[in-house]
Amino acid sequence: MIGEKIEQAQRILDEDNTNLWLTFVRESETAGDPVLDLILGEGCTWHSAFIIPAAGEPVAIVGSLDEARIKETGAYEVIGYKEGIGKVLIEQLDRFSPSKIAINYSENDVMADGLSHGMYLTLAKYLEGTRYADALVSSEGIVSKLRGRKTPEEIRRIKVNIDLTLDIFSRVTEIIRPGLTEKEVAEFILGEVEREGVETSWESSQCPAVFTGPESAGAHARPKDRKIEKGHVLNIDFGTRTLEYCSDLQRTWYFLKDREEDAPEEVKRPFEVIRDSIAMAAERIRPGMEGREIDSIVRDYIVGKGYDEYPHALGHQVGRSTHDGAGLLCPEWERYGNLPYLKIEENQVYTLEPRINILGYGVATIEEIIVVRKDGGEFMSDPQRELILVK
Amino acid sequence: MIGEKIEQAQRILDEDNTNLWLTFVRESETAGDPVLDLILGEGCTWHSAFIIPAAGEPVAIVGSLDEARIKETGAYEVIGYKEGIGKVLIEQLDRFSPSKIAINYSENDVMADGLSHGMYLTLAKYLEGTRYADALVSSEGIVSKLRGRKTPEEIRRIKVNIDLTLDIFSRVTEIIRPGLTEKEVAEFILGEVEREGVETSWESSQCPAVFTGPESAGAHARPKDRKIEKGHVLNIDFGTRTLEYCSDLQRTWYFLKDREEDAPEEVKRPFEVIRDSIAMAAERIRPGMEGREIDSIVRDYIVGKGYDEYPHALGHQVGRSTHDGAGLLCPEWERYGNLPYLKIEENQVYTLEPRINILGYGVATIEEIIVVRKDGGEFMSDPQRELILVK
Repeated sequence: MIGEKIEQAQRILDEDNTNLWLTFVRESETAGDPVLDLILGEGCTWHSAFIIPAAGEPVAIVGSLDEARIKETGAYEVIGYKEGIGKVLIEQLDRFSPSKIAINYSENDVMADGLSHGMYLTLAKYLEGTRYADALVSSEGIVSKLRGRKTPEEIRRIKVNIDLTLDIFSRVTEIIRPGLTEKEVAEFILGEVEREGVETSWESSQCPAVFTGPESAGAHARPKDRKIEKGHVLNIDFGTRTLEYCSDLQRTWYFLKDREEDAPEEVKRPFEVIRDSIAMAAERIRPGMEGREIDSIVRDYIVGKGYDEYPHALGHQVGRSTHDGAGLLCPEWERYGNLPYLKIEENQVYTLEPRINILGYGVATIEEIIVVRKDGGEFMSDPQRELILVK
Repeated sequence: MIGEKIEQAQRILDEDNTNLWLTFVRESETAGDPVLDLILGEGCTWHSAFIIPAAGEPVAIVGSLDEARIKETGAYEVIGYKEGIGKVLIEQLDRFSPSKIAINYSENDVMADGLSHGMYLTLAKYLEGTRYADALVSSEGIVSKLRGRKTPEEIRRIKVNIDLTLDIFSRVTEIIRPGLTEKEVAEFILGEVEREGVETSWESSQCPAVFTGPESAGAHARPKDRKIEKGHVLNIDFGTRTLEYCSDLQRTWYFLKDREEDAPEEVKRPFEVIRDSIAMAAERIRPGMEGREIDSIVRDYIVGKGYDEYPHALGHQVGRSTHDGAGLLCPEWERYGNLPYLKIEENQVYTLEPRINILGYGVATIEEIIVVRKDGGEFMSDPQRELILVK
């Protein structure tokens, strides 16, 4: 797949009128650039430069002890160095003579921000006095297109994880009951993950996240010893990782009180608002829209129904990573930088995950995954239509 | 241990005449700063600032959904934000009014270089027009002291890994024989790692690294289908990870030819030069020396014996990471930046790992681990004294 992604990168560079993309990195196990998963599929130890020109053969400059291993990838002409990378880097840039060099930093997109500030200063020193000193631009646009435009094989792998995650949610429904703690539910799920021989989508101390009842701590907290009680709304945020790709989904359960046959209206109504807002987002999303536009359709709908707006983005991309880089379906808040204004593209894969706190019960959230097609969002997850009721 | 390390950090800030240390980070699962393991023991999702003043209570500013989880660490006063971190960051800096702010970047030390260039640009924007704009300095000195000065508990945990690694090497000696491939030897070791319920010190596709015979690819390549033959020198580079700490050791075997009772002189002699050079380094290392001084003692000794110099540093620190940051026992080569000139400190833990290629046989290397004491290096690993001979 590395060769396929490098070819895709060269087409994007060409679209972008950028001559050359330089990924500069060291000790990738500690300070890796997530883009290496797409264009290298390997790690490196010392200062290393991965040069992808719009046309011509890609070049990797790596420490001499990494040379043999990087050659094995077959994706680069590999040049090893012993004492320092500076001179050979300039020599190689001279071969391509680029007027614009995209380098691996980004204020907006964490998945395109692999260059550390220390490494930037080193690079700037190497380029000082050369005609490349003023040629540097951010490679965020290239990285976001490269990561976002999923190939059919990438979509297939995400789908494998979605199906498995939904299947594990069904197994949860079979065993879940009042009296179990959040931790016990999480342990059951982690047992299933192990039995399937896969991994969790994100760090297993928080994946699954399990929240039951009105006192639950909110997203991004670890499962607690809090017991499920009748009358609780319970939410699980969970995904699996296999074939190097992952999923990220949420489902909501309600625990019936004695003599209840259905959830009360004050629980059902916000759940249905969430459900309907997701259907609306999938229906109305289109390539070419900005992320903030689809976020605000959902945000306005929920607020119009009398609920608080959710304190985060409507959805993020999913792929090799749970949060798979820019774009993002998010509001125009400072912390999102330029992300609200990025255009949605065909074949991007997004979560849709609004939430409503239901006073006295818990949190209603659903998280689905769609792939963006020309005429709208195609659900990759079979959407949750009703609260899962547990006696 | 987090509280202990934060107190240690405050003492170092005081030594250093630095008012405040700011670690600025986002999406730590993707773009983490390795120093968070020392001062937080948790991850964070959105732009987050961890402020440790020389005196007073540390402050963490994090996205609102991370707030509960970071509070649970008990190490910080935690402030959550929703839309953006900029304003509250300035407010908090104003509380301490620092004239010098150490921030988390470093050209020299990858373990102190967690600030991405994109995040640096964001920070610079926030500080523009304030009196902090020109107050920024690198926190590399603070981080390297904090990481390097091992507490007795840290040393104990490293020792657990060293003992286990040496024990696994003994098990290798019991099963290793001509005809096995490098891959088969690696699989045996990984089986032992799993049986012990620990992890490998670095990525398991390269840990252990196994090199047999004259054609072996050199360090940092994966084990191959190459078969061990009589007359081969074989080297394994391997370490374990448990209790959040790790080890990194190498041993060398020789496979006797038919009718040989001992390794030939041209194999024994370079092995003994390596062994003796390590003993010399342990004997002569002292707190206050520069890394390059001890490297050049060993390098000169080996070259003086008529062998090529090793193409890397004499040794690196070991701790939470296999390569545990600055200082380094390395020559004055461009790629090492200022590291050759850093002073060795008491209670730092270093590997010693020179190498010699033996033409026609393989690579002789030994890697030991020492802890630096006032009067020299104390071996934490029982040093290899003779080639391990296999019939």
